Amino acid sequence: MQCNLAVIKGDGIGPEVVTEAMKVLDTVGEKFGHTFDYEQILMGGCSIDATGVPLTDEAVAVAKSKDAVLLGSIGGNTSTSPWYKLPPNLRPEAGLLKIRKELGLFANLRPANLYDELKEACPLKAEIAERGFDMMMMRELTGGLYFGERHTEEVDGVMTAVDTLTYNENEIRRIAIKAFDIAMKRRKKVTSVDKANVLDSSRLWRKVVEEVAKDYPEVELEHMLVDNCAMQLVKDPAQFDVVLTENMFGDILSDEASMISGSIGMLSSASLNETKFGMYEPSGGSAPDIAGQNKANPIATILSAAMMLRYTFDLDKEADAVENAVKTVLKDGYRTIDIHSEGTQLVSCSEMGDLICERI
Amino acid sequence: MQCNLAVIKGDGIGPEVVTEAMKVLDTVGEKFGHTFDYEQILMGGCSIDATGVPLTDEAVAVAKSKDAVLLGSIGGNTSTSPWYKLPPNLRPEAGLLKIRKELGLFANLRPANLYDELKEACPLKAEIAERGFDMMMMRELTGGLYFGERHTEEVDGVMTAVDTLTYNENEIRRIAIKAFDIAMKRRKKVTSVDKANVLDSSRLWRKVVEEVAKDYPEVELEHMLVDNCAMQLVKDPAQFDVVLTENMFGDILSDEASMISGSIGMLSSASLNETKFGMYEPSGGSAPDIAGQNKANPIATILSAAMMLRYTFDLDKEADAVENAVKTVLKDGYRTIDIHSEGTQLVSCSEMGDLICERI
Ligand SMILES: CC(C)[C@H](C(=O)O)[C@@H](O)C(=O)O
Ligand SMILES: CC(C)[C@H](C(=O)O)[C@@H](O)C(=O)O
Repeated sequence: MQCNLAVIKGDGIGPEVVTEAMKVLDTVGEKFGHTFDYEQILMGGCSIDATGVPLTDEAVAVAKSKDAVLLGSIGGNTSTSPWYKLPPNLRPEAGLLKIRKELGLFANLRPANLYDELKEACPLKAEIAERGFDMMMMRELTGGLYFGERHTEEVDGVMTAVDTLTYNENEIRRIAIKAFDIAMKRRKKVTSVDKANVLDSSRLWRKVVEEVAKDYPEVELEHMLVDNCAMQLVKDPAQFDVVLTENMFGDILSDEASMISGSIGMLSSASLNETKFGMYEPSGGSAPDIAGQNKANPIATILSAAMMLRYTFDLDKEADAVENAVKTVLKDGYRTIDIHSEGTQLVSCSEMGDLICERI
Repeated sequence: MQCNLAVIKGDGIGPEVVTEAMKVLDTVGEKFGHTFDYEQILMGGCSIDATGVPLTDEAVAVAKSKDAVLLGSIGGNTSTSPWYKLPPNLRPEAGLLKIRKELGLFANLRPANLYDELKEACPLKAEIAERGFDMMMMRELTGGLYFGERHTEEVDGVMTAVDTLTYNENEIRRIAIKAFDIAMKRRKKVTSVDKANVLDSSRLWRKVVEEVAKDYPEVELEHMLVDNCAMQLVKDPAQFDVVLTENMFGDILSDEASMISGSIGMLSSASLNETKFGMYEPSGGSAPDIAGQNKANPIATILSAAMMLRYTFDLDKEADAVENAVKTVLKDGYRTIDIHSEGTQLVSCSEMGDLICERI
């Protein structure tokens, strides 16, 4: 199979971790007889430095012409980097919002699970960690407060800022369908999170999710208020299978879910549109403090590449091979610094990439 | 001193826990020479049953005529109670939103701390729990998405729901001032939480908070994005002193913070206006499943009464007496069922109230 990718190495540790993921893809290519073709585009701080904007229309056009995008990470230190002196619409993050919208990537999937080998890193107590957890956070990614009309103006001499949270039934339906489809391949439970006791958008959300649920009689649907969900994630994460929610709630809850896994350097993500097209990136940030030191954990990016094999190219066997290689490397005791503990062997970012390639 | 209170026992365990808090206040009155006068009003489900609405204007008028409100809890089981068949603006929670707005209770204070005696209940691992934490969540309570214009309508045949998030500089300034004032009495650190990389309201929030900070040179101000804060609460709660944030973020984060303390039955809250007036209530919900069984933990409500003594009546000595009585009761090994563990003595709601009164 010929797989054409746009690659955004981005800022901070982005280039290092993407390089390892490409190494892994090439190894998969050799073993299974596929060709991966990469065209690099700029986004984020490096794009600002080179072009003055965080994402050019030309870069968007390249991304659109490919099968998928592999992304490292973007942005820098918000208090020291000159990028954060720019107006908001010219900062690195604006590139990310633009590419999501331009490519119609409305469904953000972020698995959060506990690795047996990394239970020690889990910030929750043993009693909870022992039960383990394995959930898929499904965040709506192109609607709500992030993309609503906003403005700041003086009203009777008082500065007033307005952001708008809009959802229509079609936006809700398409992400709900993705969530139920994915639940069918997992443990067949969807927890839909909203604030229906306050927000109109949440009441519409709940209504549409219930309609969609009718087409999936095998899937158990439960509704949960967002404040309660923030509590339940800490108290009893094992209860969750697929968690379906809107953009802002998903931003907060998926980060909370990654943190309780204790190893954000292990967590992948996929952002999908209506077709097989997707953008794949690690859940963690650009970690400017350790950039360029060959210290970063490339596993999240490598697992994101595995998600790409599965969701965009339907290469399940190949995706399994990558995921199993990661598990074996952990079992063999190799760790990057972020997940290192006594009795395990510390390796660099590129060594970790090599070790995984050897096991594919 | 003559202290005039409106009392809202409310639904679920509300009546039981409020009764114990009143017992404690009366004991304080006897010991320290104050008189507490109580006038009961209805709010929530019990008000719906009696009057058809969750809060009458007459009840609001009574509350306004007093020095403070003592509240138990409102609402019932959302899937089985008939209250949740009503339109949203007639449900129990609408009473809560109405009283907050009518009384101008813009500042919600929710302490979240770990009790030495209850460290076992903390869902975080020992390494984190050992460091302890003691933070004050300051949530703006009468602005933002909760009180913005909202509507649902068909746009080109597609159902569309809109909620509006509005903040003006005055709303931000007054809650920021409260936060810095409180930080001055604590460890002199304010963490202001927003999503300034996306929202206009957050950018205005950050700007106004920075202006207010100039008047408090001794207080350290730090800004944190809401998604990061959801992670940091789990990873390293000890870093927080005062956490200042807007209504919706505060809803989510203060519940997360109570959960990591592991004992929501212990956590009080105060909602204040510009004057000394306040509404005081436990952080937990109405727990309909254990209502009427004399099993609930009254400590959160009793500590809320202590906050009332401190913030509304400036009775610091009396507030200390209540807080110390609670600590002593825990040290003496008494526990209600929610915080019970081996080697401690299980007591009922009313027994817990009595035990605390004896120690004042
Ligand atoms: C950078 C920011 C705009 C972005 C978001 O909130 O969507 C990030 O936090 C994420 O979760 O991908
Ligand atoms: C009942 C609900 C409207 C309320 C809120 O979200 O404000 C509650 O969750 C709270 O936090 O006091």
